[in-house]
Amino acid sequence: MKVAKFGGSSVASAEQIKKVAAIITDDPAKKFIVVSAPGKRNKDDFKITDKLIEIANRHCQGEPYGHLTETIMMRFSEILDQLNLSSAIAEELHQTLEEALGSNEYDSPKVDIVKSLGEVFSAKVLSAYLTSIGLNATYTNPETAGIIVSDEPGNARVLEESFANLYALRKNSGIQIIPGFFGYTKAGKLVTFSRGGSDITGSIVAAGVKAELYENFTDVDSVFTVNPSIVYRPKQISTITYKEMRELSYAGFSVFHDEALIPAFNVGIPVCIKNTNNPEAPGTMIVAEKEPTEQCVVGIAGDGGFCSLYVSKYLMNRELGFGRKLLQIFEDEHISFEHAPSGIDDMSVVIRQNQFTAEKERIILQRIQDELNVDTIKIHRDLAMIMVVGEGMISTIGVAQKATKAITDANVNMVMINQGSSEVSMMFGIQEVDLNRAVQSLYKAFFE
Amino acid sequence: MKVAKFGGSSVASAEQIKKVAAIITDDPAKKFIVVSAPGKRNKDDFKITDKLIEIANRHCQGEPYGHLTETIMMRFSEILDQLNLSSAIAEELHQTLEEALGSNEYDSPKVDIVKSLGEVFSAKVLSAYLTSIGLNATYTNPETAGIIVSDEPGNARVLEESFANLYALRKNSGIQIIPGFFGYTKAGKLVTFSRGGSDITGSIVAAGVKAELYENFTDVDSVFTVNPSIVYRPKQISTITYKEMRELSYAGFSVFHDEALIPAFNVGIPVCIKNTNNPEAPGTMIVAEKEPTEQCVVGIAGDGGFCSLYVSKYLMNRELGFGRKLLQIFEDEHISFEHAPSGIDDMSVVIRQNQFTAEKERIILQRIQDELNVDTIKIHRDLAMIMVVGEGMISTIGVAQKATKAITDANVNMVMINQGSSEVSMMFGIQEVDLNRAVQSLYKAFFE
Repeated sequence: MKVAKFGGSSVASAEQIKKVAAIITDDPAKKFIVVSAPGKRNKDDFKITDKLIEIANRHCQGEPYGHLTETIMMRFSEILDQLNLSSAIAEELHQTLEEALGSNEYDSPKVDIVKSLGEVFSAKVLSAYLTSIGLNATYTNPETAGIIVSDEPGNARVLEESFANLYALRKNSGIQIIPGFFGYTKAGKLVTFSRGGSDITGSIVAAGVKAELYENFTDVDSVFTVNPSIVYRPKQISTITYKEMRELSYAGFSVFHDEALIPAFNVGIPVCIKNTNNPEAPGTMIVAEKEPTEQCVVGIAGDGGFCSLYVSKYLMNRELGFGRKLLQIFEDEHISFEHAPSGIDDMSVVIRQNQFTAEKERIILQRIQDELNVDTIKIHRDLAMIMVVGEGMISTIGVAQKATKAITDANVNMVMINQGSSEVSMMFGIQEVDLNRAVQSLYKAFFE
Repeated sequence: MKVAKFGGSSVASAEQIKKVAAIITDDPAKKFIVVSAPGKRNKDDFKITDKLIEIANRHCQGEPYGHLTETIMMRFSEILDQLNLSSAIAEELHQTLEEALGSNEYDSPKVDIVKSLGEVFSAKVLSAYLTSIGLNATYTNPETAGIIVSDEPGNARVLEESFANLYALRKNSGIQIIPGFFGYTKAGKLVTFSRGGSDITGSIVAAGVKAELYENFTDVDSVFTVNPSIVYRPKQISTITYKEMRELSYAGFSVFHDEALIPAFNVGIPVCIKNTNNPEAPGTMIVAEKEPTEQCVVGIAGDGGFCSLYVSKYLMNRELGFGRKLLQIFEDEHISFEHAPSGIDDMSVVIRQNQFTAEKERIILQRIQDELNVDTIKIHRDLAMIMVVGEGMISTIGVAQKATKAITDANVNMVMINQGSSEVSMMFGIQEVDLNRAVQSLYKAFFE
């Protein structure tokens, strides 16, 4: 038994929904289907969820939003029309939308209900279409499915009892179509996950029903070894471990919602990233463990927007508690640090730059001066972090040398190297402006 | 005006003391002389201070120590005899020793007084000898000199008022000979610095009298670029900064007592390491800043005896405070960490292995499990840390590549690389067994 999740582009149009139906028809093991809201049909198109959020915002501010409702209903109607389905689904949703917004502009709208309607529509349409072509398909609301979440609107967390509830769905016959992105609190209130949360729903369902595989259908053939916007047509990854995937996601690989891997990871269900537009392609398997191969580097990722705060103090390393106190100052200001490499009398704290407002900077510098009595403080901005990722690199001689050579060959200065703290990656800090050049050179060294 | 400090081997015998006298005679700027206790005359010899400590210990345990007193007095007498000086100095010290030990075995001995007698003897002998050859030399006790310290026996810290007291000594004429290793509390109690503390006295005196130079005479021509027991006749360092010296000292360079640099560093007095046995050699200058040179690596040091504790936890980097809490556990157990490199979902804490007793290990592992709920904990023992040190390496492209290539060429796996946290060094963690091979290969790459 498999769980398949189809992303926004897979349900963006009638044509795409037909592809999804063909994929489901071809594989009787796909018993649970999770869907996103209709996404973009082309680069200049809009996502349904974006429009829904805009409607909720405009309603709050007393601004007109009738034209947006119109746009959404037109898209829905077009899909239903081209699939030869009744327009009742669209009308039902229109009504739900109006109810959720409240009767007048001063009512506070039920934002999470509004946001969830794109997924609800996708799931209802797909189940109606599958039924129309002769399959035994049922729309299953997350409430019926038993997806119980915490009461944190826009950022729900799944509660443990959900998994047993979902397991009970196995006894139902036919194909069950579940809208992604939301669950219900114990009190029965609809609450959404963070954005991109349909991946989370899919993973929760896979873990709950104890699927043999969680297939995540998107619009690329696989996870690439490097960002295709930096390297032209890079190699594809056939198998990757959860850990490797996580390290790559961190530094700019946005194929998969970070948190979404957790439920599948916890129970060891493999995840397969596949392409709705090319389902024959084998895709990328994300697994707990893989056979060691000669190629120990699996991918290279890079991301900008980091800054580092450097402090030095003579005989720092004799001062018990120095590092802890420095990190405490950041924690007190609710800034999470990414890395904190330390030398003998030096320590750097690397953070995402967007957390470091002028006000936070002022407070933190002041506190470091007052409380830690350091000799030097320096801030380096606009840094990029590159991750060279691969299980097995820890025990392979020469990987670090190859990587540093590639970066040096690109004439890029390494501001920071952090190897060994992670068993599956090596991290290089460089200037943001050097990012593409360094990544291209690393790709060449490891994959060409 | 210069302060010169002569180490144990420089005052180990009459012959050596004559060399010291010649060095002082040759340079009228040397107005303040600090001396250690007589050290070893050859590899199999003993150090006076070791014998004094043994006497104190034996006295405490009610064991006989007369043979040790005998040995010391013989050494003292021999020196006095060969310098044609009166034996009165030896007799005076013998009496002080007996008084400090107390009248019977149950008295608690004044250990710090016992320990200080080697330095007191050296200073008295040298000043008597210089006088005997016609110089205006005076023995100056640290109490007279105004070296006021905290009441922490065996680990005293200098108090700020000492510097003004010392400055007042400038008005005295002639050469002032001060025993190293100890000072007096405000209440007039003799207290010693940590072992090797004559370097500290020298640095304090240099800072107090505002010397133009602090010369530290030892038995090597200079600081070497690498440990001569690992590389045969390595290159010498002509100029090095305080920061570079500190990084090298950390990982096995024991030329100079770490703490000793601080007083000189604070007021920017340059330190020169010279050889009593070859005073014509230029030695190594330790300075605040130096001209950038093409050779940006100044030295390579390595030391074993480290271990690392590795933890991983899925989505660790989203957990505000994780790193701080982990370090807090070590701090609570009074273990100071050396480095704490972190990955995305991983963090390692590198400590000196000797701090990690079986009991501490048990407590720490338990607390990490209980309080941090991690996925994995691993301990790696018997690691060595190599420091490649040099100001300017931070802005030189290719240094990391050269270093990683050298280590790879030696067929050594890098367990850890930490670059960028310190502005003057790059750190490599390897297996202890690979240390010499890796250091030799690095030396070849950077210095041959």
